[in-house]
Amino acid sequence: MTDDFIRVTYRIECPGSVEAMAAKIASDQSTGTFTELPGETDAVRKRCAARVESVTALPPVDRPGFPTDTPGPYNRGDAVIAYPLEAIGTDIAALMTVTVGGVYAARGLTGVRVMDFDLPDAWSCHPGPQFGIKGSRRLTGVEEGPIIASIIKPSLGLTPEDTAEVVAELCAAGVDFIKDDEKMMNPGYAPLEARVDAIMPVIDAHAQKTGKRVMYAFGISSADPDQMMRGHDHVVKRGGNAAVININSIGPGGMSFLRKRSQLCLHAHRNGWDILTRHPALGMEFRAYQKLWRLMGVDQFQINGIAAKYWEPDESFVKSFHDVMTPIFSEDDRPLPVVCSGQWGGQAVETYNRTGRTLDLMYLGGGGIHGHPMGAAAGVQAIRQAWEAAAEGLSLQDKARQHPELRASLDKWG
Amino acid sequence: MTDDFIRVTYRIECPGSVEAMAAKIASDQSTGTFTELPGETDAVRKRCAARVESVTALPPVDRPGFPTDTPGPYNRGDAVIAYPLEAIGTDIAALMTVTVGGVYAARGLTGVRVMDFDLPDAWSCHPGPQFGIKGSRRLTGVEEGPIIASIIKPSLGLTPEDTAEVVAELCAAGVDFIKDDEKMMNPGYAPLEARVDAIMPVIDAHAQKTGKRVMYAFGISSADPDQMMRGHDHVVKRGGNAAVININSIGPGGMSFLRKRSQLCLHAHRNGWDILTRHPALGMEFRAYQKLWRLMGVDQFQINGIAAKYWEPDESFVKSFHDVMTPIFSEDDRPLPVVCSGQWGGQAVETYNRTGRTLDLMYLGGGGIHGHPMGAAAGVQAIRQAWEAAAEGLSLQDKARQHPELRASLDKWG
Repeated sequence: MTDDFIRVTYRIECPGSVEAMAAKIASDQSTGTFTELPGETDAVRKRCAARVESVTALPPVDRPGFPTDTPGPYNRGDAVIAYPLEAIGTDIAALMTVTVGGVYAARGLTGVRVMDFDLPDAWSCHPGPQFGIKGSRRLTGVEEGPIIASIIKPSLGLTPEDTAEVVAELCAAGVDFIKDDEKMMNPGYAPLEARVDAIMPVIDAHAQKTGKRVMYAFGISSADPDQMMRGHDHVVKRGGNAAVININSIGPGGMSFLRKRSQLCLHAHRNGWDILTRHPALGMEFRAYQKLWRLMGVDQFQINGIAAKYWEPDESFVKSFHDVMTPIFSEDDRPLPVVCSGQWGGQAVETYNRTGRTLDLMYLGGGGIHGHPMGAAAGVQAIRQAWEAAAEGLSLQDKARQHPELRASLDKWG
Repeated sequence: MTDDFIRVTYRIECPGSVEAMAAKIASDQSTGTFTELPGETDAVRKRCAARVESVTALPPVDRPGFPTDTPGPYNRGDAVIAYPLEAIGTDIAALMTVTVGGVYAARGLTGVRVMDFDLPDAWSCHPGPQFGIKGSRRLTGVEEGPIIASIIKPSLGLTPEDTAEVVAELCAAGVDFIKDDEKMMNPGYAPLEARVDAIMPVIDAHAQKTGKRVMYAFGISSADPDQMMRGHDHVVKRGGNAAVININSIGPGGMSFLRKRSQLCLHAHRNGWDILTRHPALGMEFRAYQKLWRLMGVDQFQINGIAAKYWEPDESFVKSFHDVMTPIFSEDDRPLPVVCSGQWGGQAVETYNRTGRTLDLMYLGGGGIHGHPMGAAAGVQAIRQAWEAAAEGLSLQDKARQHPELRASLDKWG
C-alpha cells in the first residue's frame, strides 16, 4: 500500500442490496446525517469522504446473523471501503471509531464483519513488537526448534510459595518458558509483587545451576496503567523479562502506554476475543484484529492450537498462525505464535504440517506436562519428542517406539 | 451487596443442560483444565472457586445464537455465578478476564450474554464520575430542565476556522452544549490543538457578551494515553471544560489513566458497543457494560433515543436510560444521560413519559437543529418548546399552536 488511503474490507449481510448498504456505510462513516445540511460542500467531502472501491458478491444465506423480522434470503458480499488517511491519521482509536465502531450500528444490516485492514505506509510509525520471534529466542536461549512452554497449574488458588514450588518443578522438568494463567493478576492470596519475589529466586537459582534462564511471564495486567507499570517495574527490578498481557481487558490505551515504557517481552492473551469472532457473520476476523495489536507491540501471541479445548475449529487456528507470520510492514513486526490450549504433543505433527513446516513458535502444554503419568519432566520430553518427529517426518507412533515418554502420552491422551 | 463475592448473571444458551454448562463455566473460570492435576486441593479451591448460585430457566429457542451443527431446540437460562472477591480483587481488567473473557470461548455454547454484575462494597473504591449530573448542570449553568445540545455538522471535513463559524452559529442559536462528532479527533485537516484554538475564543466571546458559557466537548480520544493527555491539557489551558471520549476505542486503560488526571467533563460515546449487544443471545447487556464505564469515570453517557437513526429499538434505549439513572453505590455515580441520534424534539414527550418523567438529561439535536427550516435558533427553540410540552403534559400538536418553530419541525419531520 503506497497511496494515502486506509482500506477496510467488510463482509456485509442484509436483506436488501449489499452495494447500497456499502454506500450507506461509507456515507455514515464520513459526513452523513439523517437530513440534508448546508455546509456539506464538495471541498468538505473531498477531505474525508469514504468511497466503496469494490463489492464481491457471496452466496446469500437463509438465516440472518442478527435476528430480524425481515424475511430472507439475506444477501452477502465483501465490500472494500477506502478512507482518506487525512481523515483518520495513524491513531488506532481513530481507526476503530471511524471504520469499525459506528458500522456495527447501521440499520438494515443482518450481519457485518471486519475482514481486514490494509494500512498505508504511514502506519509503519507504530512501534510493533520490541522482541518478537528473534527477541524471544535470544531471551530464552532457544536458538532453534520450538520454545517449549508451560503454565502454572492449578491456574488459580496457589500462594506465592506454592507457586514457586511449581516453578521449581517446571524448571527442573526442562521447559524454556513458564507463565501465569491469564486469570492470575494481583489477587489477595497471591499478590503480584509477592509472586515475583517468590518466583524469581527460583529462576535465578536454576540459571546459576544449569546456565539456562527460563523465561517467566508474570500476569501484570491492570485496567490502571499506573498500577500495571508498577508491576512491570517490579518484575524488571527482580530480573524478570516477560509479562502476560490480557489485551482486551486493558484495551488499546493500556497496551500503548505499556509498550512505550516496557522492558519486558509481552505475551498477549486475547481472552474476550471470541465474542468478536465466534459468529462468522459478525464482529471481526482475527486477521484484522491481530494487525492492530501487533502494531501496538505484542511480542508473543496466543492463538490456540489443533484440537484446542475451546470452541475454535482447527482451520481457524491454522489461519491465525499464517496471519501472525505474515509481515505487515516488515519481518520484524511478526510476533512469536503461541500454540496452546489442550496441547500435549499429540498435535505436533499436524501443527507442523499445516502451519508451513516452521519451528518458529512457542508450544505451550499445561495439563499435558503437569498431568503426564511419568511426571512433568517426562511431559516436557514427550513434547520435544513429538516435535522432533514432526521435523523428521516421522509419525508419532513410530517415534514413540524409541521414546517411552511419548509412548505414555499417546497412551493417556492419544 | 455486603458479602465478599462478585456475582455475574449470564444468559446461557446451549443444546444440552444449562445447569451443567453453568457449572462448567464456574469451573473453567477458576481452576479447571482438561485433565486432572495434583495440587488442586480443597484449600486451593476454597480461595478461588466460583460457584453457581442459581439457574432460572427460560423458554428454549429453535435457532441458535452461534451457528452449530447440533440440532435444537436450544435450552436457555439465566445463571448467577458467584466469584470470591479474593480471587479477582477490584481491578476491572481482572473482572473482565476472569468473569467475561474466557466465558465466550467455552465449547458447547450456542449463546452467552453477560446480563449484569453485582459488585460488593469494596468496588466503591473506583473514582466514578467527577462531574456527573450535578457537575454538568453547574458547568453549563442549566439549573433545571434538559441541557440542550448540538453537534458540529457536517461531522467531518471542516477546517478549524469553518468549525468556529458553526460554533458561533450554535452559540447564537442558544444551545447549552456543543460537541465534536465522535469521529472527529485529530485529523490532518483539523488538528485538535488548532480546533481548540479556533473554537475557544468563540465560546469566550459568547460568554462575555451574554453571560452564558456554552460547554464544548472536544474529541481528544487517542489510543496513546500520553497523546490524549496532551490534548486534554491543551483544552484546559484554553479554558475548555469537556471532552468526547470514545470509550471502546481507548479501552479501560485509556479511560482509567485519563480519569485520574482529568479536569474535564467526560462525555462518553460508546461506538462499537453495538457488536457486543446487537444479537440478543450474545455479548453483554448494556446494564452490565455501563456499570464498568461509570465506575471508571464517565460523566455524560450517550445512549441513543426514541426513533434513533441506528438499529437500536426504543425499548432498549428506555432500559438504558433507567440503567444509567440507577445508583451503583450512590446517587453521585450516575452520569448525565445523553439522549441523541435523530432527535429533533418530536420525541420529547414520549421520552419524558417513558424515562420516569425526569428532566435530568442532555438532549442532543444535530440535523434537527442545523436542518430546521427557520434556522438553527428556531431548531433550538423548537426543541425547548417540545420539552416544555412534555413537562406541561401537553401534546406537541397543542404546543405547536402557539409556537411556529415547533410547528415547522413537526411539518418537516413529524
